[in-house]
Amino acid sequence: MPYVNIKITRDGVTPAQKAALIQGVTQVLVDVLGKNPATTMVVIDEIDTDNWGIAGQSVTERRRQG
Amino acid sequence: MPYVNIKITRDGVTPAQKAALIQGVTQVLVDVLGKNPATTMVVIDEIDTDNWGIAGQSVTERRRQG
Amino acid sequence: MPYVNIKITRDGVTPAQKAALIQGVTQVLVDVLGKNPATTMVVIDEIDTDNWGIAGQSVTERRRQG
Amino acid sequence: MPYVNIKITRDGVTPAQKAALIQGVTQVLVDVLGKNPATTMVVIDEIDTDNWGIAGQSVTERRRQG
Amino acid sequence: MPYVNIKITRDGVTPAQKAALIQGVTQVLVDVLGKNPATTMVVIDEIDTDNWGIAGQSVTERRRQG
Amino acid sequence: MPYVNIKITRDGVTPAQKAALIQGVTQVLVDVLGKNPATTMVVIDEIDTDNWGIAGQSVTERRRQG
Repeated sequence: MPYVNIKITRDGVTPAQKAALIQGVTQVLVDVLGKNPATTMVVIDEIDTDNWGIAGQSVTERRRQG
Repeated sequence: MPYVNIKITRDGVTPAQKAALIQGVTQVLVDVLGKNPATTMVVIDEIDTDNWGIAGQSVTERRRQG
Repeated sequence: MPYVNIKITRDGVTPAQKAALIQGVTQVLVDVLGKNPATTMVVIDEIDTDNWGIAGQSVTERRRQG
Repeated sequence: MPYVNIKITRDGVTPAQKAALIQGVTQVLVDVLGKNPATTMVVIDEIDTDNWGIAGQSVTERRRQG
Repeated sequence: MPYVNIKITRDGVTPAQKAALIQGVTQVLVDVLGKNPATTMVVIDEIDTDNWGIAGQSVTERRRQG
Repeated sequence: MPYVNIKITRDGVTPAQKAALIQGVTQVLVDVLGKNPATTMVVIDEIDTDNWGIAGQSVTERRRQG
């Protein structure tokens, strides 16, 4: 019955990559904890780089500075 | 003072349906716990079907397979 | 496939009240959006009153002030 | 290593305001708890006013009523 | 810079299993999206079975019914 | 109407420090966005170091390694 929320920057992640994330993370829960994949949910949130900060700066600013 | 976050797939839910969700969930908190609706918050997140996984597959894939 | 997270203060909510919250919120999603209850998850987080703030004060402080 | 999630209504918040939020909240964690800003993350979610409810009504409805 | 939140029932998961979850989920983000593990955070929430509902019932009730 | 969730490691943060976090973060939302503090909520989650991972390791392991 696990629920997993993955937050990543919005950077053109493809549907195939999202499917691989969902498959991979679900498999980790099966392998490590023996969870039932049928009731394992994964929700991916893509966050604009203006809206994600680290070290007191947005990712947009950090990338601009290189 | 409750805070409720509802995640659903992005499937054309209308403003009227969202209003009904907000009203209904708030009422449950009033009825069951006697919470004050004035400080009860509800936030609805609509998630693209590519970004929601269950049973190791995205909802997009599951719907395609019928 | 909805996922609902309810945050409330830790105030001695009973298992019966939690069961009523789970049942009530699930029913709202069935009634308003026709969601399948079998894949509707509800997670309740109980938050210590020191850890919940509103209006710039913790709930502990607010209650002390009456 | 703190992680902060800020949810606000989608109301035309500018990149400069978002940068100020990220900088300000990170500084609070440095000042109050001595946290390392380099590993402090802030994620801002902007929520449509149809999707945010308080007092049993969406923010859209509340604003319409003035 | 990903952030992952894993919610599981509180069922005596060991520190070694938690370490394996953290390692495994981080590796999925490295493998699928090429993310930098140094800034990948994973937070595990263990939820009491009274506080987790599926199909309108708490996990406690479901287990009692077998 | 903002909602802020702060996740930090469980490290003996005092009620006074929590109150300062709540006050400080609320003030940032007032200063930067002109939000109404009366409806600004802050929820602090304290996470066991076994349950928080960065760089593929739990914080417990990282601290043991110094």
